[in-house]
Amino acid sequence: MNFVKALTVIQKKNNSLLCVGLDTDPKKIPAHLRSRKNGVLEFNKQIIEATKDFVCAYKINFAFYETMRKDGWTIIEKTRALLPSSSISIADAKRGDIGNSSSYYADAILNKMKFDSITVAPYMGKDSVLPFLEHKNKGVFLLALTSNQGAFDFQYKKIGNKRLFEEVVTISQQWNTNRNLGFVVGATKSTDIQSVRKLAPEVPFLVPGVGTQGGSVENVIKYGCTDDGLGVLINASRSILYASNGKDFADAARSEALKLNNEINFFRDKFF
Amino acid sequence: MNFVKALTVIQKKNNSLLCVGLDTDPKKIPAHLRSRKNGVLEFNKQIIEATKDFVCAYKINFAFYETMRKDGWTIIEKTRALLPSSSISIADAKRGDIGNSSSYYADAILNKMKFDSITVAPYMGKDSVLPFLEHKNKGVFLLALTSNQGAFDFQYKKIGNKRLFEEVVTISQQWNTNRNLGFVVGATKSTDIQSVRKLAPEVPFLVPGVGTQGGSVENVIKYGCTDDGLGVLINASRSILYASNGKDFADAARSEALKLNNEINFFRDKFF
Repeated sequence: MNFVKALTVIQKKNNSLLCVGLDTDPKKIPAHLRSRKNGVLEFNKQIIEATKDFVCAYKINFAFYETMRKDGWTIIEKTRALLPSSSISIADAKRGDIGNSSSYYADAILNKMKFDSITVAPYMGKDSVLPFLEHKNKGVFLLALTSNQGAFDFQYKKIGNKRLFEEVVTISQQWNTNRNLGFVVGATKSTDIQSVRKLAPEVPFLVPGVGTQGGSVENVIKYGCTDDGLGVLINASRSILYASNGKDFADAARSEALKLNNEINFFRDKFF
Repeated sequence: MNFVKALTVIQKKNNSLLCVGLDTDPKKIPAHLRSRKNGVLEFNKQIIEATKDFVCAYKINFAFYETMRKDGWTIIEKTRALLPSSSISIADAKRGDIGNSSSYYADAILNKMKFDSITVAPYMGKDSVLPFLEHKNKGVFLLALTSNQGAFDFQYKKIGNKRLFEEVVTISQQWNTNRNLGFVVGATKSTDIQSVRKLAPEVPFLVPGVGTQGGSVENVIKYGCTDDGLGVLINASRSILYASNGKDFADAARSEALKLNNEINFFRDKFF
């Protein structure tokens, strides 16, 4: 099935726009797991078990796993295998290279590792992004307006009457012949989400930046959703993963995730 | 030692600006190695042995290894261990994420995997790049003007009276307090190398795009070098690695690399 359709089906079925970011820091997991050989995998397993009945997606940020080198890659794959088919998997790898090289990243992560979607960097342009988009039934979340302070360094710079992130959003949609493109749009830039939505009325947004980074859920729903109250995936990582650093971490993660999911749905009911 | 100084010392000692790109495609290595379990590693080993007396750097593009997943990461590390101390190692990984995540990529690749330098994507701005630059004795090659066709999609767009790649070069040098920043500048954009050199008179350039991609060595030397005839690392990958697909591949690679090195030094003599 087409990625965007599959995402919509799952979001409706689970009544959820919530994505849990498995950005699992080996140094931040509870002490009783930190000493265990498979501590990170066990942590991920319990987080998934505790949240899988009400989220729509899981995002795995490769940075936290690559710090464990080849063992980290094994944990990524084992974690991917634990994700329920009732959710979308996102490889948050921010890859992008000349076409020939990008095609290898795409083959590794989308084909071999079976991720449903991936985050991709736009700087190198069309031939660096196409090898990902060519995987017709997979999704590509292109970095557009990121949640960090550094977004102001280049993404807000004016090109003619557009800002760079708007230029990225406009140009890249010309490559979207398989209708499997999405954008990363930070929750911390909430009113500007509206600018991206106007330029891309139908494309899904992966929205990091609520929780620890402080973005507003209300504004994300109000300005980011498509007309049907869907179209955004709101990601939270640290606020859920580390809600407790004790043996009750999974219960605490569930409570925190449920609270956020309820907040999201409160505003969906309010605005749609 | 500071990365830029170490690079200069090696370039002078080896009388070489040549970087061999170990972008080893498991499907393109000679047939007698393709069937072997450690074929890619053996291939890399022989390429390194055949070239190490006259090159200044080796670049490992992670894309080609990640297609082998965890085994690929093992090969990256084993290849890194084979690189002679008389060369600079470059992790061509094009990473970049919010600061917290970038710090994990930097820790993995620069600390744990012991690479001397890394390629980094600029789109997410200062806090995505600083965690790499903070490794004082390591080098950071920030993507500025890339060698591919897609460079025209965003990098050439005008921001005020500058083009985006010039803006990246200007702004990022403000972050270069440890003097360990470099830029990726494609050989295929040869006259524009001069624009980057004018904006960054002392910073080393990693220059892909000669060989298979067709960039001009003469223009790279003429427009890219610093005043002392140094300051650029000219990378070639496919034209060297696959100079022969038979059992003589290492000899053929040596000949091809020597030819390119001689061409580079011919123009260094001519212009400096």
